[in-house]
Amino acid sequence: MPRTRRAATAPPIALPLAPERADLPLYVQLYQQLREHILSGVLPEGATLPSARTMAADLRLSRNTIDTAVGLLAADGFVQRRVGAGTIVADTERLSPRSTRPGRNEPGVATTVSPEARLSRRGLRLAACGDAEREADRRGLPTTVDVLGFPTMEWNRVLARALRERGPRVLQSADPQGDRALRRAISEHVRLARGVRCTPEQVLIVNSTQQALDLIGRLLLDSGDRVLLEDPGYPSARMAFEAAGATLGFLPVDRFGAVTDRLAEHEDARLLYVTPSHQFPLGVTLSLKRRAAALEWARAREAWIVEDDYDSEFRYDGQSIAALQGIDRDGRVLYIGTFNKVLFPGMRLAYLILPPALVEPFVSARRLSDGGSSSVPQAALAAFIRSGQFAAYLRRTRALYSERRDALVARLEALAPAVRVGASDTGLHLVALLDADVDDTALAAAAAGSGVGVAALSTYYAGGAGQRGLLLTFGAATPAAIEASMDALEPLLRRASSP
Amino acid sequence: MPRTRRAATAPPIALPLAPERADLPLYVQLYQQLREHILSGVLPEGATLPSARTMAADLRLSRNTIDTAVGLLAADGFVQRRVGAGTIVADTERLSPRSTRPGRNEPGVATTVSPEARLSRRGLRLAACGDAEREADRRGLPTTVDVLGFPTMEWNRVLARALRERGPRVLQSADPQGDRALRRAISEHVRLARGVRCTPEQVLIVNSTQQALDLIGRLLLDSGDRVLLEDPGYPSARMAFEAAGATLGFLPVDRFGAVTDRLAEHEDARLLYVTPSHQFPLGVTLSLKRRAAALEWARAREAWIVEDDYDSEFRYDGQSIAALQGIDRDGRVLYIGTFNKVLFPGMRLAYLILPPALVEPFVSARRLSDGGSSSVPQAALAAFIRSGQFAAYLRRTRALYSERRDALVARLEALAPAVRVGASDTGLHLVALLDADVDDTALAAAAAGSGVGVAALSTYYAGGAGQRGLLLTFGAATPAAIEASMDALEPLLRRASSP
Repeated sequence: MPRTRRAATAPPIALPLAPERADLPLYVQLYQQLREHILSGVLPEGATLPSARTMAADLRLSRNTIDTAVGLLAADGFVQRRVGAGTIVADTERLSPRSTRPGRNEPGVATTVSPEARLSRRGLRLAACGDAEREADRRGLPTTVDVLGFPTMEWNRVLARALRERGPRVLQSADPQGDRALRRAISEHVRLARGVRCTPEQVLIVNSTQQALDLIGRLLLDSGDRVLLEDPGYPSARMAFEAAGATLGFLPVDRFGAVTDRLAEHEDARLLYVTPSHQFPLGVTLSLKRRAAALEWARAREAWIVEDDYDSEFRYDGQSIAALQGIDRDGRVLYIGTFNKVLFPGMRLAYLILPPALVEPFVSARRLSDGGSSSVPQAALAAFIRSGQFAAYLRRTRALYSERRDALVARLEALAPAVRVGASDTGLHLVALLDADVDDTALAAAAAGSGVGVAALSTYYAGGAGQRGLLLTFGAATPAAIEASMDALEPLLRRASSP
Repeated sequence: MPRTRRAATAPPIALPLAPERADLPLYVQLYQQLREHILSGVLPEGATLPSARTMAADLRLSRNTIDTAVGLLAADGFVQRRVGAGTIVADTERLSPRSTRPGRNEPGVATTVSPEARLSRRGLRLAACGDAEREADRRGLPTTVDVLGFPTMEWNRVLARALRERGPRVLQSADPQGDRALRRAISEHVRLARGVRCTPEQVLIVNSTQQALDLIGRLLLDSGDRVLLEDPGYPSARMAFEAAGATLGFLPVDRFGAVTDRLAEHEDARLLYVTPSHQFPLGVTLSLKRRAAALEWARAREAWIVEDDYDSEFRYDGQSIAALQGIDRDGRVLYIGTFNKVLFPGMRLAYLILPPALVEPFVSARRLSDGGSSSVPQAALAAFIRSGQFAAYLRRTRALYSERRDALVARLEALAPAVRVGASDTGLHLVALLDADVDDTALAAAAAGSGVGVAALSTYYAGGAGQRGLLLTFGAATPAAIEASMDALEPLLRRASSP
């Protein structure tokens, strides 16, 4: 087609505004149609657009609509406005400079696309599980960690020193497996504190327990594979495995932890997720016998065990129990620990201790899924652990939390027998067990109404039915705040428990 | 079974060491069998184990093997050694304290499980793609970013100030979508610098481009869905979509970028991945006409376009071209930008600018997949951008890189016509195009032998066939280092190109 430079006036253009796009503003429809005409050559390079007045008359649209549409075309470089020469179609084969800046922050044209219609099937499942996780989180426990006491000055010094001492190399792309010094510090820490047996090569740094679970779901499970969870249990783990497309099975929990006798009913399961040190939410500890039974089951079935050791750093009474991982002789246990609960939630550093055979595939998957964690905080944390500052901080917070737990337990015990205090020797929350006829969901709602954030135990059961009680956190509350909360909670508890 | 407390001596135990586990050390087999006997009640609580000497004789094993196995049992809490009373089976129903500390860092018993046998199908694919990505990375471009000039002191001050000014709240769990102040700063930056139209609500902070691609693959693609990529193209994107199970199709690239005329051949494709500002690896810019054609295709087919704007901050000549996202009126473009190339690779902060309809599902998926990025660096980066330090740093590095590019281009142009310099007005690398009969892979290997890290252009083509050339990075090399590299490279280039 010969180029018609400066065509004196363009003929009227056919611009049928599509009734099926009545959901789009008229100026957008006009913009789109003019753009199509430019791209198809109907309006060739150098052609002059009809004046706004002419177009408004021809198309029976307002001047404003025309001006907005042409303004968008100019902003996008499809046309140029020349004083005295009108609006000229630009050379779109070559690059056209942007003629105007877009205005204030604004979305592009609001899309009318329904996301449901265009997400993939697995995307829909992933998004739905993420929503459910947020819901569980919202109606669940309030903040458990006291960040007020975090030594931010010390931490800043450690960060600055890491940058200074490690030099520019620490700014370079991180090893997807994680900073080696940090992996060494972690393997030493978990050996001493948790009886975990590992080398630094078995440690994979991740952003969070959630990321560890996500990688596990993607690497070890196919859609339809069976996963066993504790009931009641940790909602986020459940959602992670559901997002992976797993079929879920459940083990009940009693005072010795997950009832491993029931493992025999699940021969086909590929993975068991447990919280042996401090069962979430009941707080009990898995007995050694059951630990061994779980390991034996995993060995015989070639299944995996995921040990989520989410807050065992905070043990107040009794002797620390070695991690399940420490007595695994068959390489079947994946151990998860996190700094996001011990230090501060925004830290985003956790770790996965892998059987040797799984290290390579997990590192490859981490590399492809996000490339690794932030390098400077990793270097800083390694130094924080090595220098003993981490252990000192743990001791300080453990003493603090122990005092808070005592205050809470004392108040709850005064309410016996209506309230029985669950296991409370570890962690940052405990369960106040209630009679089976108490509506704990209504009670939690009433408590929220009185400004006390608690969660109903029954909501942590897979089927919704189960023991009744309230989950109470004490990590972030001073003893005085605990007294005040209990003053508000006590009448509600008494009323709910009275026959 | 009645409990036989302190049975004077236990009868000989049947411990058939399994020949099929000949891959396991004898002490492990013995440990496992004793453990099974304890758990099954054959060796009940309180029973005394036969002495090591007796067991060694009965089982025809060395004392050393017996001692190691019993030592493991004791370490794991299954037995207790009592002076004068021998080795007693512990109460495994109750919790047993760990009686000994594990030794130095050591893996548990080395597993003989083959990971291939136990990864899921999708896990195998994910790990294989991660491996391929590492391979591509290893034989690919050397470091492109100069971290030596990064203002670490300034950055430390910004980090410390963010902690001080934001207070303890910044330590709390981050919004999975990302720090609001950072999202606001990014939406402002991309509007001014890239012509991107968005509100802060459309910005999702991610750790890296890789994480953006991973989320896109999971949310928008099902296994078997068709994805279109540029050929030659970015290997990590290809691997991310392959890991998502996508079927790949390819668009050739000429001097105006990806040849969008070929889109018509791929009606069934759900997604197109492009690098419009600075095609990777060829360096060309997608023409406005083709941008519009891609948008029109996406609108008509209800497909998605992923715009990876990986290093467009570094434009040296000509006017900046607005992002494809900026002229999308239909909400079909997902725009990816990253700070890991502009600031430092270990930073792990990038962003995805989403069509409004996709924001919610992406945030839900991010929440479930790792919960969000580290909070303090996000707050610091927001302040770094707002204060103008980011823009100042960009200006400084742009001037630095421009000088380096000039040095490299001058040397290469002196080698014409054997070498033609590809587009070099943007970014941190350029392509030295060579004749079609040059073996660029051999040339890259020879260069590596001379200490010069370059990548062969032909390896970026999907089929392996394509233009020949070398990718050269100049971001991290001083002009003097560039001269030295070119002194080494020049004879190799001359030899390879001589007929």
